[in-house]
Amino acid sequence: MKVPVVKSILAANDQIAQENRQLFDEKGVMAVNIMASPGAGKTSLILRTIERLRDKARIGVIEGDVASSIDADRIAQEGVPVVQINTGGGCHLDANMLRAALPSLNLDELDILFIENVGNLICPANFRLGAHIQAMLASIPEGDDKPYKYPGMYQGVDALVVNKIDLLPYVRFDMERFRKGVAALNPDVAIFEVSCVTGKGVQDWAEWLMQKKDTLLRRG
Amino acid sequence: MKVPVVKSILAANDQIAQENRQLFDEKGVMAVNIMASPGAGKTSLILRTIERLRDKARIGVIEGDVASSIDADRIAQEGVPVVQINTGGGCHLDANMLRAALPSLNLDELDILFIENVGNLICPANFRLGAHIQAMLASIPEGDDKPYKYPGMYQGVDALVVNKIDLLPYVRFDMERFRKGVAALNPDVAIFEVSCVTGKGVQDWAEWLMQKKDTLLRRG
Repeated sequence: MKVPVVKSILAANDQIAQENRQLFDEKGVMAVNIMASPGAGKTSLILRTIERLRDKARIGVIEGDVASSIDADRIAQEGVPVVQINTGGGCHLDANMLRAALPSLNLDELDILFIENVGNLICPANFRLGAHIQAMLASIPEGDDKPYKYPGMYQGVDALVVNKIDLLPYVRFDMERFRKGVAALNPDVAIFEVSCVTGKGVQDWAEWLMQKKDTLLRRG
Repeated sequence: MKVPVVKSILAANDQIAQENRQLFDEKGVMAVNIMASPGAGKTSLILRTIERLRDKARIGVIEGDVASSIDADRIAQEGVPVVQINTGGGCHLDANMLRAALPSLNLDELDILFIENVGNLICPANFRLGAHIQAMLASIPEGDDKPYKYPGMYQGVDALVVNKIDLLPYVRFDMERFRKGVAALNPDVAIFEVSCVTGKGVQDWAEWLMQKKDTLLRRG
């Protein structure tokens, strides 16, 4: 008699992630998984990106949080379709949570879906959602040592947005040390230095997203 | 026949936490579990506190990180006994990791043990270590909405150190909104507004720790 082996949580998650991805591809929606520490500026970046892209692409947002709908409320004020996922203590989004949220959005009317993950620099890196783009935010006041201390997150992303560069005059942050740490882990990552307060640098990130979207749709 | 039930991970963890606590009590060591987001300033706070208390108490430090020994190296430069725990991807310290690290310190020669948890505002709140004091750092640039979004961490702590108040002129942070969120979750928490750059406010926190230590030792 063969002993039944329960598939690992991560393998089960990957299966659902693949199904989510297939749905996004069918609908022509580019999904962007945005990860960062608490308070790095994920929602602010999404809002700034919406400003830049709302005339060029139809945007939707899924907000992941342990509790509250503060972030989703900020997005909804912009008239953008948004769904809040509350994990109820859970430290990351997983593919199944995302799948459960998708029917609340009309994917036929979207070009880009931003998925704001739970604020956490560790666990979200381990759970695929099915997104096309893995993006992370770093934040200047977090310090320049974070790539060395949280390698898992830095290793697995396609884009790294370094936010709050308006605070560079007021904190100790050695950009060279930071970039050296990133390069050792992920030499091909696209890096954008931005300030979501002043708007500086956001345009480059927004254009990069549009290029990615065009490439993905042409391929699809 | 009774079906054997494996005790939950959290119950097993609590058992070891209790044993750690018993050891600390026997040795007359007050253990302080310090939790925060990545980059909130946990190591900086420990260094500033060592400055204030090194003539009054014998201090040791355990550093928890996903990777690297950057923080432990900073502490070691001060000539303070320090042990680095690398979780190898794990998102929090647990009681068993702490237990494994303790033989590397001579507890007979310590009065206060700071345990710097992994940078994470969610998971560390769920794993008791056996520490006498649960302390957390918030950081001004993280934003004033964090108590509303990460209630689990704010609910369970004895002390809340609000760091980086030197950045208040440069970021949007409504202290009243922040404190209102904290009060709703944890009305009795001791709150200290500090800057580990200027040193402002650190003295109050250090004195509070010494009072706690005296109370605990008198009781023991």
